[in-house]
Amino acid sequence: MSEYNQDGITRDVLDAFAKTPDPRLRELMTALVKHLHAFAREVDLKPEEWLAGLNFLNATGQISTDKRPEFILLSDTLGLSMMVVALAQARASQAKGATEATEATVEGPFYWAGAPDVELGSDIANGATGEPTFYMGRVTDCDGQPLAGALLDVWSGDGHGKYDVQLSSEPSMQARGRFRTDAQGRYWFWSIRPNYYPIPDDGPVGDMMRATERSIYRPGHLHLQVSAPGHVTLTTQLFVGGSPYIDADAVFGKRDSLVVDFETHPPGKAIDGREMRVPYHSASFDVRLAPATA
Amino acid sequence: MSEYNQDGITRDVLDAFAKTPDPRLRELMTALVKHLHAFAREVDLKPEEWLAGLNFLNATGQISTDKRPEFILLSDTLGLSMMVVALAQARASQAKGATEATEATVEGPFYWAGAPDVELGSDIANGATGEPTFYMGRVTDCDGQPLAGALLDVWSGDGHGKYDVQLSSEPSMQARGRFRTDAQGRYWFWSIRPNYYPIPDDGPVGDMMRATERSIYRPGHLHLQVSAPGHVTLTTQLFVGGSPYIDADAVFGKRDSLVVDFETHPPGKAIDGREMRVPYHSASFDVRLAPATA
Repeated sequence: MSEYNQDGITRDVLDAFAKTPDPRLRELMTALVKHLHAFAREVDLKPEEWLAGLNFLNATGQISTDKRPEFILLSDTLGLSMMVVALAQARASQAKGATEATEATVEGPFYWAGAPDVELGSDIANGATGEPTFYMGRVTDCDGQPLAGALLDVWSGDGHGKYDVQLSSEPSMQARGRFRTDAQGRYWFWSIRPNYYPIPDDGPVGDMMRATERSIYRPGHLHLQVSAPGHVTLTTQLFVGGSPYIDADAVFGKRDSLVVDFETHPPGKAIDGREMRVPYHSASFDVRLAPATA
Repeated sequence: MSEYNQDGITRDVLDAFAKTPDPRLRELMTALVKHLHAFAREVDLKPEEWLAGLNFLNATGQISTDKRPEFILLSDTLGLSMMVVALAQARASQAKGATEATEATVEGPFYWAGAPDVELGSDIANGATGEPTFYMGRVTDCDGQPLAGALLDVWSGDGHGKYDVQLSSEPSMQARGRFRTDAQGRYWFWSIRPNYYPIPDDGPVGDMMRATERSIYRPGHLHLQVSAPGHVTLTTQLFVGGSPYIDADAVFGKRDSLVVDFETHPPGKAIDGREMRVPYHSASFDVRLAPATA
């Protein structure tokens, strides 16, 4: 019964978890043990590799703070975060018509609740450096019906790839804002064109990226969280078409359907009538929300 | 190419690791990503479960110190440590005859290098509380030929399940010693009968054990590391037959072949001639070492 050949070990561990009262926790631990043991067997894991792995996890925990969640970064760079997002969207899309909804992607670590509510057409850059960009689009349901009063919560880094919270220990909000769509479901605002940037690479995850010769960069992107009554709240990103690293996102958040062409314009009167004395870009991005299930 | 359906995510992550220069690291990361993603898909991992898992790993790193390696405890309680031991022994046993070698098990966290070299027949208890026990056996190769001068490094907790290092911040060694076998490969010494004890349960691993209603105890056992020139060094444990929790070792280290019957004797002249004024036990355990490969 307790013979410890390799299969026997796995069986004994599964037996030990079999009495877990909560059925979901039991399911999670059972699957975790199966895959963990299968991994070790498949690679014939050596003691020194096992220890290196545990030391890596330990260092990941030790370097972490509230402001630096290194395990989330590890999850991001292993594609696990994106997998969890995709699974959640797959569940939501079981609702009728939801397969036509805009694709979700990872939220990232830079969301800051409480961005100012501003008028449509406002410039939310608030001093963020970068090339001016006019953003516009419509929020609809999956049948293309406009959603009036939908809430857009928008945030991005600046034209140098830095977020406000990275620029100062007491930052003021830049390139962040909340809008409500008009009666036709439309939104429009000004900000800057976000640039690509590196993920934090001075910790264990950075060591992993170097040892595996992976790129540490994320392509330029603008974050959106879009919500409307009766619909599934969408957390996604709009990616800057042609950005460096557009096909090598270090956290696997980029989806082809979210890449937007940024059109460049000479100085002059912009689409909303604003007089621009410098060249600027425009980007159009429509959002389709899935119906909430009852 | 970068379509982010769930299979697409896994493929993209594997592609990202494909350029890893070191072939073994590439193999490890590839298998890790496959199993990690397969786990998430299999259980349809929810965002709040994902976050709870990352918070658990983070807490495991944060509580860890040199003296409290919580990730090793986690590995132990998930049976991964024992799996790595079993895989190592399977590799060693590919040498001719090695399948007859004594089974290995986990080293545990309480090894203390530099235990005193003592004469055969010594009492190594050195003040450790517990019932006196006479240990004896032979060290041979896999053909049963005695190995003279084999080194045994022995350590255990006491009769209350405590190791010396747990009893004081500046402990002196108790229930630890190193011997060399005599010309017939024999060893014998006195110590105490080790008792069962709980693993540290005031951290994340303890939380896991409670949530899954698992036993946190290890059955009584004595650690041995046995080495001889030309042979694979063996790290194993001798388990006290009939100990509480003998069939529920929290770290899955117990093997049936390592369980030893502790015979109880009335006061009187012991096997080695020592006059015992209290009841005592005796335990006999032979060790067979695998030949080292060239």
